[in-house]
Amino acid sequence: MQTIPRKEYEERIKKFQRNIREAGLDAVLVHSNESDFANVRYLTEYWPTFESAGVFVPAKGAPVLIIGPESEAYAQGRSVIPRIAKMVEYRESAEPDYPGIPVAHFPDVVRTALRGRPLKKLGLAGFSIMPLPVYFSLQLELPGVELIKADDTLTRLRTIKSANEIKLMKKAYKISELAIDAILGEIKPGMTELQVIGIAQREIYKHGGEYEGHALYCFYGPGTKHAISRPTHNTIKRNEIIQLNIGARVGGYSSSVGLPCSIGKLPARKKRLVEFGLEAHIKTAELMRAGKPAAEVVREYEAFVQRRSFKQFMLYGPCHGIGMMEVERPWLESTSTYALQENMTFQVDTFFQDKDFGLRWENGVRVTKTGVEKLSRKFMHLVEL
Amino acid sequence: MQTIPRKEYEERIKKFQRNIREAGLDAVLVHSNESDFANVRYLTEYWPTFESAGVFVPAKGAPVLIIGPESEAYAQGRSVIPRIAKMVEYRESAEPDYPGIPVAHFPDVVRTALRGRPLKKLGLAGFSIMPLPVYFSLQLELPGVELIKADDTLTRLRTIKSANEIKLMKKAYKISELAIDAILGEIKPGMTELQVIGIAQREIYKHGGEYEGHALYCFYGPGTKHAISRPTHNTIKRNEIIQLNIGARVGGYSSSVGLPCSIGKLPARKKRLVEFGLEAHIKTAELMRAGKPAAEVVREYEAFVQRRSFKQFMLYGPCHGIGMMEVERPWLESTSTYALQENMTFQVDTFFQDKDFGLRWENGVRVTKTGVEKLSRKFMHLVEL
Repeated sequence: MQTIPRKEYEERIKKFQRNIREAGLDAVLVHSNESDFANVRYLTEYWPTFESAGVFVPAKGAPVLIIGPESEAYAQGRSVIPRIAKMVEYRESAEPDYPGIPVAHFPDVVRTALRGRPLKKLGLAGFSIMPLPVYFSLQLELPGVELIKADDTLTRLRTIKSANEIKLMKKAYKISELAIDAILGEIKPGMTELQVIGIAQREIYKHGGEYEGHALYCFYGPGTKHAISRPTHNTIKRNEIIQLNIGARVGGYSSSVGLPCSIGKLPARKKRLVEFGLEAHIKTAELMRAGKPAAEVVREYEAFVQRRSFKQFMLYGPCHGIGMMEVERPWLESTSTYALQENMTFQVDTFFQDKDFGLRWENGVRVTKTGVEKLSRKFMHLVEL
Repeated sequence: MQTIPRKEYEERIKKFQRNIREAGLDAVLVHSNESDFANVRYLTEYWPTFESAGVFVPAKGAPVLIIGPESEAYAQGRSVIPRIAKMVEYRESAEPDYPGIPVAHFPDVVRTALRGRPLKKLGLAGFSIMPLPVYFSLQLELPGVELIKADDTLTRLRTIKSANEIKLMKKAYKISELAIDAILGEIKPGMTELQVIGIAQREIYKHGGEYEGHALYCFYGPGTKHAISRPTHNTIKRNEIIQLNIGARVGGYSSSVGLPCSIGKLPARKKRLVEFGLEAHIKTAELMRAGKPAAEVVREYEAFVQRRSFKQFMLYGPCHGIGMMEVERPWLESTSTYALQENMTFQVDTFFQDKDFGLRWENGVRVTKTGVEKLSRKFMHLVEL
C-alpha cells in the first residue's frame, strides 16, 4: 500500500513543533472527523471513521493521538505515533455512554504530553470543524488555559508538498483518468447519473484507490448548473451536457478530474460556453508560477474573462488548494495575500454557469519555478461521444 | 427517485415546533455536515456536501435553511423549505473568503424566522458536531440569548419511524443484500479488501442507492479484530475470516448487513466464535419488543453471553439505533433509561473479538408490539464458499 514513509511523519511533527514554538504556544490540539480527516492523518496516518480524532502536540516532546472509545485496535494498527488516549468527546454523534470502557480526560493527555511543563497557551487547529464538546471540556478541565485559533501553524506545512506527496497525488490523478476512461466507454442514454458514479467507484477501487477523493459528480442537463450538488436517479439523454468530476484518493491524497461531455453533439450555445471554459481553464495554468502573488493570478484571470465578455457566467474561481483534501487551503482569491511557491498544488477549477446549465473543467497543477506541472492533462478537450 | 413526501416534511416541522415550545425554547438551530447529514436532511431534504448546513426553526412560523456561499443553486433545487440564507460560518473548512458573494448574519436569520417575536432561549441540535465558528457567531451576534443543548427536541422525533421511512430502509437493506450476493459471486483469493468494496459500490449505485450507508467494511484475517477500521490493499486468502459490512443508502435512509464469511473452511477455533456470535445475534432479536426497557434487553443479552462463557470476547453491544445515519440515537446500553417503542429501528450489531480476529453479525429490526420485524434476514448463516 503506497503511503508516506514513517520518517516523513517524524519530520512533519518536528516542523510543526517549530511552528508551535514560533507562535508562542505551549501546545496545539488538532481536530479531524470522518469527512474532514486531513489534519490528524497528516501527523499520524490515522484516518478517523465514525468517531472523530485529535492530536495533542506539545511544543517539545511526544504527541498524543486522541480517539473515540471504539477505535483503539484500529488506531494501534494505524497510527505512527504510539501514545493513544480514548476520550468520550471524540465518540460518535449518537453519543453512546460506553459503560465499562475507561476513558481519559484532557488533564491526563496534558500530563502525558507536557511531562510537568506548564500549559498556558493552547492553539487549536481544525478550528472550523472543532465541535462544541471538545471545546467545552477544554474550558472546564483546563481552567486558566488560553485557547487560540492556530490553524496556520499546521496548514502552512501542508501547503508545500514533498516528493512523496506529489507521487501519491499523481497516482490518484492517474486513477481518476482511468475511471473516466471506463465511464466514457460504458455511458449510454438511459443510464442514471448514479449508475455512472458506480462505474467510477468500481474503477477507483480496482486500480488501487483507497476511497473517493470527494463526493463524485455526474450531473446531467439542468443539474450541471449547481456549483455543489449530489448525483440523482435522473437519466442521461443525448445532445445534452453531462458533467463529470471524478476523483480517486490514494494513501490519503486526493485528486479530481472534471470535464463536461455529451453523447452526440451539443447545441451551439452550450458548446460555445464549454469551449470558452476550456480556454479560461488553460489560461489559468499559464498565469501561474512560483513567486507570483495569488491575487494577481485572480485579477489577470478575471480580466481575461471580462475581456472575452463571459464575466456574467462566472461564480468564483479560478483555483483552490488540493492535497489530502480535494479542497484545502489556500484558495486563489482576489483577497489572497500570499505569493505562489514551488510545490504548492492547486486544483484549477473553472466553473461557468448560464441560466439552464453549467460546466466545470478541473485538473491539478504543481507550481514550479517557471510555471506549473500538470497533474492530469488527458481530458483537456471536449468529448462528444 | 424514492423519497419522503413533502407533506411528511411539513408534519415533521410541526411536531418539532411543538417539542420546541414544550421545552420552553423560542427556536432551535439544527446543525449537519457532509458525513453527519441527518438532522438537516430530516427537516428539509437538503443534504449538505463540501459545505455544512443549519436549519433555524422558530417555535412558531417558517424555518430558514442556512447554507454555505457555494450551495445556493443546489439548495434551491433540493430544499422543501423555501427560505434559504447563505452564511460564511457554513463554508468549507478551507475557509475561502468568497469576495463578491453576499452573505447573511444570524440577526438576519432571526428576523426572517421570528418576525419580531423575542429570542431569549435558543436550543442547539446536532450539538456534538456543531463547530466553533457557528457557536462564536451566535454569541457575538445574538448577545444575551441563552444557548442550550437541545438535541432531544429533534432526535425523539427521528427515533420513531413512519411507514415511508420504513419503506426506504427496507429498500436500502434489499440493495445491501444484492451487493453481498454480487460479492459472494465474485470474491476470489488474491483480491484486495478494497476491490471487494468496489464490487459493493457498483451494485449499490446500479440498484438505486444514492450512496454508501456508512464507510463499507471488508476486512481480512487480523484486520477483522477492529471494531472500527478502513479496508486496505491486503489480499484475501483461503481459510480465513473475511468480514463484510455492506450498507446502501436510499432517499436518505441507511442500512447495513454484516456477516463473517470465508473462502474454504474456517479453522475450528474461529468457527466456534463465529457460530456463537450468530446465536447471540439471533438471541438479541428475540429479547426485543415494544414496552421492554432497553437496559433490560442489554442485561439479558450480557447474561446470555456470560452463561455461555463468551463474555471475555465482548467489546460492546448489542444494538444501536439506525435510520438516516447507520448509527444514530438511541443505543441499547446497560445505562439506557428508555423503553423500546413500536417503530423504533435498531441495528442488531453483534461484535466479538479474540486476540487475532473478530467477527460482526449485523442486521436491522423494526420493533413491533410482540417482537421485531427483521429488515434483512438473508445472510443469517455462515457462508464458507
